[in-house]
This record gives sequence, structure tokens and C-alpha cells, in this order.
Amino acid sequence: MPEDLRNRIDHQPTVAGLSEADLLARIFPRLRTEAGYTASTLLGPGDDAAIVAAPDGRTVISIDTQVQDQDFRLLWPSGYRTTGFDVGWKAAAQNLSDINAMGARATSMVVSLTLPVDTPVAWVEDLADGLAAGIRGLGAVHCSVAGGDLGRGREISVTAAVLGTLDGARPVLRSGARPGDILALAGTVGHAAAGLALLESGIGVDTLTPAEHAFVDLQCRPRPPLEAGPGAREAGATAMLDVSDGLLRDGKRLAAASGVAVTLDPECLARLAELLGPAAARLGADAAPWVLGGGEDHGLLATFPADVQLPPGFTAIGSIHALGTDEGPGVLIAGRAADTGGWDHFAH
Amino acid sequence: MPEDLRNRIDHQPTVAGLSEADLLARIFPRLRTEAGYTASTLLGPGDDAAIVAAPDGRTVISIDTQVQDQDFRLLWPSGYRTTGFDVGWKAAAQNLSDINAMGARATSMVVSLTLPVDTPVAWVEDLADGLAAGIRGLGAVHCSVAGGDLGRGREISVTAAVLGTLDGARPVLRSGARPGDILALAGTVGHAAAGLALLESGIGVDTLTPAEHAFVDLQCRPRPPLEAGPGAREAGATAMLDVSDGLLRDGKRLAAASGVAVTLDPECLARLAELLGPAAARLGADAAPWVLGGGEDHGLLATFPADVQLPPGFTAIGSIHALGTDEGPGVLIAGRAADTGGWDHFAH
Repeated sequence: MPEDLRNRIDHQPTVAGLSEADLLARIFPRLRTEAGYTASTLLGPGDDAAIVAAPDGRTVISIDTQVQDQDFRLLWPSGYRTTGFDVGWKAAAQNLSDINAMGARATSMVVSLTLPVDTPVAWVEDLADGLAAGIRGLGAVHCSVAGGDLGRGREISVTAAVLGTLDGARPVLRSGARPGDILALAGTVGHAAAGLALLESGIGVDTLTPAEHAFVDLQCRPRPPLEAGPGAREAGATAMLDVSDGLLRDGKRLAAASGVAVTLDPECLARLAELLGPAAARLGADAAPWVLGGGEDHGLLATFPADVQLPPGFTAIGSIHALGTDEGPGVLIAGRAADTGGWDHFAH
Repeated sequence: MPEDLRNRIDHQPTVAGLSEADLLARIFPRLRTEAGYTASTLLGPGDDAAIVAAPDGRTVISIDTQVQDQDFRLLWPSGYRTTGFDVGWKAAAQNLSDINAMGARATSMVVSLTLPVDTPVAWVEDLADGLAAGIRGLGAVHCSVAGGDLGRGREISVTAAVLGTLDGARPVLRSGARPGDILALAGTVGHAAAGLALLESGIGVDTLTPAEHAFVDLQCRPRPPLEAGPGAREAGATAMLDVSDGLLRDGKRLAAASGVAVTLDPECLARLAELLGPAAARLGADAAPWVLGGGEDHGLLATFPADVQLPPGFTAIGSIHALGTDEGPGVLIAGRAADTGGWDHFAH
């Protein structure tokens, strides 16, 4: 284990030397701003549970886990070392994106950390900084980390549960798309996948161009467009989900939930792929699978009635059609069924 | 890896052969009753997030993780094999206990599972059954599993976040104990620790007496007294927490949060230890450390004004005193400071 070796060589303090209370005392001050917790946090860390405001009598809730060597590598083939900051930011981003995809705004997060005993304390402090920076940097200004849990394991694992509010409005579900709707995208697709391909390549991270580095940054610290979710809801979006597993796979989910066919416009796809062209050329790869199968940018895929002006941040990339006879819900490109190429945790 | 070997020999289907969607399709039907989800679940699994009722405009929230080989062994020295049902039940119990300790009732749970690829599908189905049985069996009749997340890892890890409501009432915090209050306990202490000692011993689980088996059962499937938390709140409890890390350690937390001294009555402790005497004798062990340091029964430690009649389920075990000059908050037994002997995830 090179990480283990590195710790022993550097004599960095590890979590093995701290009690749970000591480690929490290092973490929690980093999670609040100078002003303390947000107004949504009615009771913060330190008791058996936290208490969070749910102003309209409902709480939107989601949970998501990142595991070492599954969702990130501590050391990539490109030589990049994932920082605690990256992992904290990504945990915040992935979870906030789920709230965004309902058309809601985040009010609170609780976080459970599983850490090997040889994890440097500085790495964990950096993770706390990344969590806080992700929440603030992505604009989730009403959200605080209200509590958490710490434990040991053989691999680093970070689970966050995020709470949000709809402020009295209806949620935007996956099931509301109707024939005739416009399909639109907010945020990027395929950039995080390009970043992943660069990280997994033998190309040294120090030799990347600024544009290539931006893809790596987006893989390590995704930037879901948090203003776009509530904006889509207000504009009258009929269905929405976050593109975490790729345009085809998530498009198919929207199609299945709504009982419709999703058609992607090949010209729009080509324009999305164009942005990835130089990185694809560098790697001798094809940009199309990144656009169609790449998740982790956490953009939003939403449908709107045809007469609605798309809200800021959204671009039309296709349309919704009624299912033909003997046709199952799915995704079409130029009239032909597209294969699902997204990431699945279990099947390959 | 004997588990791995066993799977290969038995040719049991493992999660490696299923997509995430297929595995979720095996799990979710087991988590709802015939009547579906509880009324608290406004939107259940299947979208980017769930929506849960928060009738008084607040949500109580806690998160807790169990990791293989840290919180349970798949195979114990006694020969006992932890079932998926055990792990599911324990995840439910631990989390529901945190809501109980605030004086609240649970409304919902979201669960994130990390599974090695060689985990048998049947084990995961059993875990789902254990989660559902724990929620119902412990009496959390308003609670459903509203959503979740699945991913891969090298070790089994189960994180649950649980939501609850106070129904308009005040929460019972750790910080409200006042000099003169009675200290009382609901549920058991030390039984799960005795069960742990039996599991870790070389004594074959098949040779245990029914009384000893009951301790093992409580370690594997704890039974927090879920009616006692709201009952204590209604009766006027001034402070409360769940005894998850032992009477001394959790007593010290209550003392520190409230700025008081907690005095445990040695006669009460002796009575608690007496219940564990035969199991201690069998192991050649001392029951006192189980009573003082054993967590995982998830009983409740609460304080009440002296003129309050203790609510059902609670027994007085001590009292609260003002701090003397130069005295820090802590736990005393018969006038002497008691050492903290509970479980800490990091320090030993």
C-alpha cells in the first residue's frame, strides 16, 4: 500500500492517534461559517440527532456514498493524487445535485465517514474543508452540515444524506414528460468522463493543457448547476433528473418513468462532442461515448412544454414523442434506438 | 476469504450478476408492507430524492454506519454467522434509537448499501427483510424506507439516515440536566456486551443456554425501547441520550453537555450486573465492565425533575448534582470518579 508507506515515511499524524471526540473537534469547526450554521439548522452537531427546518411541512431527502477505489482512486495512473478536499467537494456536489433535480433547494446535510486507521488527520481536515467549500461554492447558501458519524473501515467511504425544501411548490418528477415536450440540458455532459479518461491514462497530469485540466477538475470536483433545478420547476418543467449515469441511461429512465420516447438531436450531440474533441484526439479516443455515456458532471435533463421559454442555463437537445405500436420507452437518435452506455455499479 | 470460497462452492447467485436496477427491484418490494409505504412517505423510491412529511415544520435527522469486521463479523469465533437479516435489523435499530433519544418518532429512513461483488443476492434480500422487520418489530409504525443508494466496495457497509418528527413538541437534548434531577434508564445495559463476549469466545453458539442466546440475539438484533423516548419527553425529561457507547461514556456526555455531575447508585449497578452474572461466570469474566462500558443495547439514559413520576419503562439509577469547586463534569460512583470504559471507534 503506497499510501500506508507514504504515511509512515512522512510521519504524518493519522486518525489512529485520535479519539472520535478529538477527530470530531477537528472537523466540525471547519463545517460552519463564521456566522455559525444556516438558519435551516435548528439544532446542529452534538446531540443524538440534528433538527432541520422543513418550512412547508415536507422534507426532500436523498443519500449517496463514495467509496475509495470505486468512485475515486487515491493515486491515479496519471500521477494525480485525490485530495480530501476533492472527496469532500464531490460528496457535497453529488448529493446537492439530487435535491436540485427535484426542483428543490438544500437545507442540510449529514455525513458519515468511514476511515482506515492510517488515514492522515490532515486528509480528513481537508475533506471537511472540501465539503464546506462545495456547499458554499456551488451556491447552496441555505445548507449546513448538521451532523455526522465517524467509524473505522478498511477503505475510505463517505456517505452524505442531504435534505431540501420545495418551499411549497410541486416537485419535478421523472414521470411527467409528455409527447410534444422539449428535452433540454443544463450544465455539461461528458466533461467529467473526459477528465476520468485523462486521469486513467498514462499522460502525466503535469503535462495537461489548461482545457484538459478543466476536465480533470470537473471529474474531481463536479459543478452541478444548482440554480437550474428550482429555475426549471418555476418555468414549468414537466420532468427532470440529474445526469449522473450518462445521457442515454438517464434519458431512458426519464422515458420509462414517463412512458414516452426520448429523441436526442444528433446536431446537438455533435456540438456537445465538439467541446471534447481536442481531449479525445490527445487520447486517441472518441468523444461520442463520453457525451452519451458519461455521468458525474451532474447536469440536469428536463422536459418543458413546447410553448415555454427555456429558463436560464438550459439548451434544447431533443424532444419527447408518444410511443409507437410495439415500441418500449427508450432513447432514439435520428430515429434509431440508442444503446445504453452509462455506468452501472454492478453489471458490465 | 472463507466467505468468498463458500460462495464459489455453493454457486449462490451473487450481486456481480445483477445490474443496480435488478438488485433494487429485488430489494424495494421487501421494504414496503402490503399497504405500501406509510403516510409519512409522500414520495417513495424511484426518483432523484424522496419526499417525507414534516408535519410541524421540522425534521429530526441522524445518520449511522455499520461496517463489516468493525461493527459485525460475518463469521464469529463462536461459529455464529451474521445474517443479512441481523445487519438490516441492527441498522434500523441503531438509527431509530437516535430519533427515540430526542423524544421524537421516526417517519422515514434512506439507506445506502456498499457491497462486495461476491455478496450473495440472498444475503442482500435478507438484509432488506431485516430492515423492514426491525422497523416494524420495534414499533416504528410511521416509518418506511423511502429511498437508497447501492454501490460496490471491498467490505459490506450499511449507512442509514433516519428522519423523525417531534409533533410540535420540544426536543429532549443532552444539555438540560439540572442538579437535583433523577437519573433513569429505560431498556437494558450490558446485555449486548455480554452477547458480544459470547460471540467472540470459543464457546460454540450451539451450546449456549436460552439466557445466553438472548444476549447474543440482543447484540445481533438490538431492541431499543422506542416508546420510551416520546414517553420521557411527555413526562418532562430534562435531558436524554441513547446508551450506545456505555453508561460511563454516555453518562459523561450528558454531564459535560449539562455542566453537572452524574452520580450512579452502586446498588442499582449491582442489580443490573446481577442479570449478567451467569453469562459472566460461564466466560470467567466480570459483569461490571459490561454494565458500565457496554453499548449497543441502545437503552435510554434520561434525567427527570425529582417530583416527576418516572414514565413507563424507566428505572431510577442515580442522580444529578451541581459541580463542586474545581470539579469537572463527569460520572461518580459512590462519590468517586468513574473511569470511562465505553467503546471508542479510534482510540484504545
